[in-house]
Amino acid sequence: MVKRSERMPIFIDRRMDQYPTCWNRAKLTGLVEEAAKRRIKCYFVGSREDVLTYADELQREPSSLVLFLASNEEPSNLLSEYVGLPLSPIVFAHHIHNMLEDEFSYVMSDLAGAMREAVGLLKARGCRHLALFAVDFKSNHDICRVESFKRIYGTEEPLVFDLGNGLVDCISELVSCRDRIDGLICINDFCALPLMRVLDRLDPDWNAKMLMLGFSDTTLAALHKPALTSVSLNYEDGGRAVVRLHRMLAKHEDMAHLHFIMKSSLLLRDTTEAAFPPGMRFSEMTPVSDAEIFRLICTRKHFMMLENLLNYADTVTLRLMLGLMDGKTADSISKELFISKDGLLYHLRKLKSAFGMENAKEIAAFLCTWINRDALESYIH
Amino acid sequence: MVKRSERMPIFIDRRMDQYPTCWNRAKLTGLVEEAAKRRIKCYFVGSREDVLTYADELQREPSSLVLFLASNEEPSNLLSEYVGLPLSPIVFAHHIHNMLEDEFSYVMSDLAGAMREAVGLLKARGCRHLALFAVDFKSNHDICRVESFKRIYGTEEPLVFDLGNGLVDCISELVSCRDRIDGLICINDFCALPLMRVLDRLDPDWNAKMLMLGFSDTTLAALHKPALTSVSLNYEDGGRAVVRLHRMLAKHEDMAHLHFIMKSSLLLRDTTEAAFPPGMRFSEMTPVSDAEIFRLICTRKHFMMLENLLNYADTVTLRLMLGLMDGKTADSISKELFISKDGLLYHLRKLKSAFGMENAKEIAAFLCTWINRDALESYIH
Repeated sequence: MVKRSERMPIFIDRRMDQYPTCWNRAKLTGLVEEAAKRRIKCYFVGSREDVLTYADELQREPSSLVLFLASNEEPSNLLSEYVGLPLSPIVFAHHIHNMLEDEFSYVMSDLAGAMREAVGLLKARGCRHLALFAVDFKSNHDICRVESFKRIYGTEEPLVFDLGNGLVDCISELVSCRDRIDGLICINDFCALPLMRVLDRLDPDWNAKMLMLGFSDTTLAALHKPALTSVSLNYEDGGRAVVRLHRMLAKHEDMAHLHFIMKSSLLLRDTTEAAFPPGMRFSEMTPVSDAEIFRLICTRKHFMMLENLLNYADTVTLRLMLGLMDGKTADSISKELFISKDGLLYHLRKLKSAFGMENAKEIAAFLCTWINRDALESYIH
Repeated sequence: MVKRSERMPIFIDRRMDQYPTCWNRAKLTGLVEEAAKRRIKCYFVGSREDVLTYADELQREPSSLVLFLASNEEPSNLLSEYVGLPLSPIVFAHHIHNMLEDEFSYVMSDLAGAMREAVGLLKARGCRHLALFAVDFKSNHDICRVESFKRIYGTEEPLVFDLGNGLVDCISELVSCRDRIDGLICINDFCALPLMRVLDRLDPDWNAKMLMLGFSDTTLAALHKPALTSVSLNYEDGGRAVVRLHRMLAKHEDMAHLHFIMKSSLLLRDTTEAAFPPGMRFSEMTPVSDAEIFRLICTRKHFMMLENLLNYADTVTLRLMLGLMDGKTADSISKELFISKDGLLYHLRKLKSAFGMENAKEIAAFLCTWINRDALESYIH
C-alpha cells in the first residue's frame, strides 16, 4: 500500500528554462517519466502565486519543490520566491553549496567519483602525463573538479588549462605547451570536440598518441569521428531519483533532508582506444594561429542546439539532417521521407531558425564538421 | 521480496570505543536493533585483518562499513586502515567534512534545523536577547552551530560565550556580563546543568527571568530540577537510518553515496516554561568567585558515566542509586530489593568504581546535586 502522502504532487521551478541545457533537459525527462510511472503529478511553477493556485492540495500535506541550479547560484536566491510555503526544496546540483546553510535536499552528481573513473581509465591505458583541459575557475564545480583531479591524480601541480580567456586562447595555450601530454581530461564534451578539430589539423594520427575524454556524456560526443570517450553523470537517473527522494521524505518522518549522489559511468569510445600512447609534444609541430583555431572551431556555439535536436527532435528532422549531410536536395529528401515538399520545407525553416543559419548548405557544412554521417545514420535507426 | 544483497552484513568500526559517549551508544543501539529486526548481521572490526576474517562473505558482494567520527576527525584517517576493501563507508557525523573529498555516505544530525527549533522556541516564548553558551571554537561542529545561530537569530554579532578556557571561566564570563540576557542556548546539556547550579545560587527565581535550553537531549537533563528543555538530535533514529541507507545502496545501483540528515525534535521542560521573561542582568547580583563556581560544579566530570548508567544500567543499580539519595543503609536497600546484602554490596562496589568515589555518602551527594529524587523514581517505574 502506497501511503497517500507519497502521491503528493511535485512542484518544479520552471525558471530553469533560463538554462535550457541538454543536461537540465535530461534531468527533467527522468523526473517527469518517473513521476508519471508513480502516478505523481508534476506542476511547473515560476512564482509564489503559481504555487498558491494549488493551495488546497498543499494544505493537506507539505510537498517538494524541485530547483535546477546553475553552478554558482545560491539556492537561497531561487528559494526566496517561495519562503514560508510548505514545500521542502530538492536541489539539482553538482555539490553542496554551503555546508553551514544546508537546509535542503540535494540530488548531485558524483564529481569525485567521475574524476576517479577518468584518471583510472587513462592510467590503466598507459598514460603517464595527464592534464585537465578548459577549466572555468569562476565556476565552483570546475574548482571541485580541479581539486579532485589533484587529489586523485596525486601530483602536486598537474597541468591545468584555464578557460578564463575563452576556448581559442585555451586551445592555443595547450598547443604551445612544451610538455609531453599523453592523456587529457576535458571539463566537458563541448570543449573536447573543438580541440579535436585542431588536433586533426596538426596531426591526423593524434588519437594514437594522446588519449582524451570528456565529462557529461553527450550524443554529439558519440556521433563525432573519432567518437569521444565520456564520463556520463547519468542525469536522467538523477531526475528519476528526485521522485524516489520525494517519496522517502513523505514516508520517513524522522528525516529532515536527504542527499543522493548519483553514480557516474564511463562510455568507452575511440579516443581512449590506444594503449601506451607515446604522448604529444605540441611545440614540435607547425604552429597554428589563433585565427586558424577560431576558423576551425567557430561553429561550436551551436553545440547546445544541436545536442538538444539530436536528443529530442522528431525522426523527420533527424533524417532531414542526414539528407543535408549527403548533399541531397529538398525534393529528393521529401520523396525519400514520403512527406510533401511543403512539409519538408517547414522542417528546414525550423532548422535554419534553430541554428540561425541562412541556407541548407551552411547547415550541411556545420553538421559535416561535427558529426560523422554513418554514426548519425545508425543513431537514427 | 528482499534481495539477498540487502542482507549483507554491516561492518562497524569498533574504534569508536575510544569515545564511549552516551551519544555514540544511542546511535549504536538504534543500529544494532534495526539490523536485528531486518536480520542483518553486524560485525565489529578494528583492523584490516578483522575484516579479512569475513573475506568469503565480502567476495560475494560489497558491503557497508560504519564509522563513528569525533568532530574534528577526518574520515580518511579512520578509513586508511581499510583501503582497497570492498566496503562503502557510512559515516556518523554532524556535518560533511570536506565538500571536495565527498566519497562516503553520511548519517548526520540536522544542526541547522536544531538551531532553528531552539531560536524559534525562545522567540515564541518572548525572549528578545539570546546568547549561545559554551562554544568550543576548536570543534568544527560548534563552529557550525555558531554560524547557524548568527544566521537564524539574524543579529550581526550576538553574544557567544567561549569555552576555550574551560567551563568555570565560561560561566564566570557569563555571570559578569552586563547585558541583559533572557534566553540562553547551551551547546549541550552537560554545559547547561552546571550553569543551572550557579544560577540557583545567584537567584532562586532565575527560571522565571531567563529561559534556557540545551542541545543533544540527555536523560540527566530530564531528571534535573528544574528539568532542562533540550533539542534532541535523535541519535537512535540515526542509528536505525544507517540500516536503511545500507539497504538502499544495495538496492539502487545508480547511487554512489547517500546522506541522510535526521530531523531534530524539541523536548519541552521546565526551563522554557515562562513566557516573556524579563531577562537577567548578572552584574547587579552579588558576585561569585571562580572558586565557588568550581565548588558548585566540580562533580560534572562524572556526567557521562551517570548518563550511561541512567540509560543502560539494570534496575537494581538504579534503585540502589535512589536508595542512596534517600539516605538509606545498604541493609535496608537490600531488603527492599529482595536481594542478599552481598549482592547489593557488589552493585555498590561497581558504582563506586564507576564514579571513582570512596564511599556511598559521596555518591549520594553527587546524585542529589544533579538529579531530582522524585524524577528518578518515576523514571525507574
